[in-house]
Amino acid sequence: MPTPPVGIFTGALHLFPVRIYYEDTDISGLVYHANYLRYMERARSDWIGQLGMDQRGALENAARSFFVVRGLAIDYLKPAQLDDALVIQSSLTALGGASMTLQQSIWRAETQLIDATVRIAFVGGDGKPKRLPKPLREAMSTLLVA
Amino acid sequence: MPTPPVGIFTGALHLFPVRIYYEDTDISGLVYHANYLRYMERARSDWIGQLGMDQRGALENAARSFFVVRGLAIDYLKPAQLDDALVIQSSLTALGGASMTLQQSIWRAETQLIDATVRIAFVGGDGKPKRLPKPLREAMSTLLVA
Amino acid sequence: MPTPPVGIFTGALHLFPVRIYYEDTDISGLVYHANYLRYMERARSDWIGQLGMDQRGALENAARSFFVVRGLAIDYLKPAQLDDALVIQSSLTALGGASMTLQQSIWRAETQLIDATVRIAFVGGDGKPKRLPKPLREAMSTLLVA
Amino acid sequence: MPTPPVGIFTGALHLFPVRIYYEDTDISGLVYHANYLRYMERARSDWIGQLGMDQRGALENAARSFFVVRGLAIDYLKPAQLDDALVIQSSLTALGGASMTLQQSIWRAETQLIDATVRIAFVGGDGKPKRLPKPLREAMSTLLVA
Repeated sequence: MPTPPVGIFTGALHLFPVRIYYEDTDISGLVYHANYLRYMERARSDWIGQLGMDQRGALENAARSFFVVRGLAIDYLKPAQLDDALVIQSSLTALGGASMTLQQSIWRAETQLIDATVRIAFVGGDGKPKRLPKPLREAMSTLLVA
Repeated sequence: MPTPPVGIFTGALHLFPVRIYYEDTDISGLVYHANYLRYMERARSDWIGQLGMDQRGALENAARSFFVVRGLAIDYLKPAQLDDALVIQSSLTALGGASMTLQQSIWRAETQLIDATVRIAFVGGDGKPKRLPKPLREAMSTLLVA
Repeated sequence: MPTPPVGIFTGALHLFPVRIYYEDTDISGLVYHANYLRYMERARSDWIGQLGMDQRGALENAARSFFVVRGLAIDYLKPAQLDDALVIQSSLTALGGASMTLQQSIWRAETQLIDATVRIAFVGGDGKPKRLPKPLREAMSTLLVA
Repeated sequence: MPTPPVGIFTGALHLFPVRIYYEDTDISGLVYHANYLRYMERARSDWIGQLGMDQRGALENAARSFFVVRGLAIDYLKPAQLDDALVIQSSLTALGGASMTLQQSIWRAETQLIDATVRIAFVGGDGKPKRLPKPLREAMSTLLVA
């Protein structure tokens, strides 16, 4: 039984809510900087799931295919804090045969906290690039923005 | 502006949803055992917020009051997996002047994964026990189960 | 090439150092309660490695065997803080055919911060209990304390 | 009592060891991508401590000064795995009045896994940039590489 998605699409833009808990903060009183990467990955997992991809199934079958982050650039504009309700915005800005690039930003109401670009590859169990499954790639191509 | 709660009460029982992402798993393919404590803390934060407590405000004012875990016992009955949609059930089973005990369990549909008892204290910035604010304690007392 | 161990044995007692970084703390200024479970797992991994077990190899071969935590009880006696240098003490208090119990405590110099009992099972890829490999079990049995 | 450093300097280059445990991996069997940021922060904390900065003291005094990450770019060249013994290399490539840039890379023996550039600011409790303490800035300036 597939689990219902958490995020929503408005056109090609994917919106995903994240709540900030104790675990997310550090002694500075703000969110620990590495944790924003976790939130963006949650959003991408929801995004990819809504495109029909079963990530666990792909890992558990013989081919053991999965997505890996090849690189990212992130600007920390404003900090998030305990109890914040954030929204992750994700859009697909480039699509290759075995790779893609997403633009992701994090917002608290009208305030942008994070701006990031994330490069992703699709790989097999040997870690080598692998062509995206055709139905998935076709679904992605409809979401590509300039 | 307070953020809307995520969990719901059915009587004195608090139900809180958790989704499992890549960050939650480890090389075994299952959820890393320490992470269930994070989910139970998220549920308690939602629970305490719905009782009217502003955790961040309490930390940021001069008294720096907060809740700490004094001890817990947990049984891992079944493992959670990537993409699981879980529910945390929490109920208050003991209430002192500066402490409380919650029974928390984690479920995937009808299957219980986790059974835990968590002892919590309310402390000040000096780490010493501190009486629970009266309105909060009164709200809690209505939720106490045998 | 196996990596050198981090911890040391004094008789049957295993000592393992842990340093506290930003990632370990939360907004209270203290170590987040779930993180102590991570430190105890690091110590157990070092302990099991020194007994000759290759955890990654065991996961990667066809049988996919690994250790899972079945249950634990933990008392939080005193909090750890940023920059603390801690020591995890671990000793084996019970040993079955496919299970074991460890007593683990965490210390900052002469001050005990944590007292815990952890029940572990050895399982196969199907999640079912599996007899411990004989050489490993024999090595363990020499470390068993009353 | 200050805790002894973990890393070492060879000239202006700081070397810091990191071991990979269960907590660091995910269902892919490799290290979760956000965790490399934790390792680089550990190395920076050791680096800054060796320059004479007491991070906890700076946070706990009235001014509540601390370092924040303003931005970073990271390339994931090869994945780290369970039980790996890694080394973080850090060098200071730019130094302003209230900011600095570090080049950080992660290695497993002769293999480079990660290449990153991290921009850091020094801020006060109000989140606004604050001049680096003079002795600290002078110590840093001796480590600046072209």
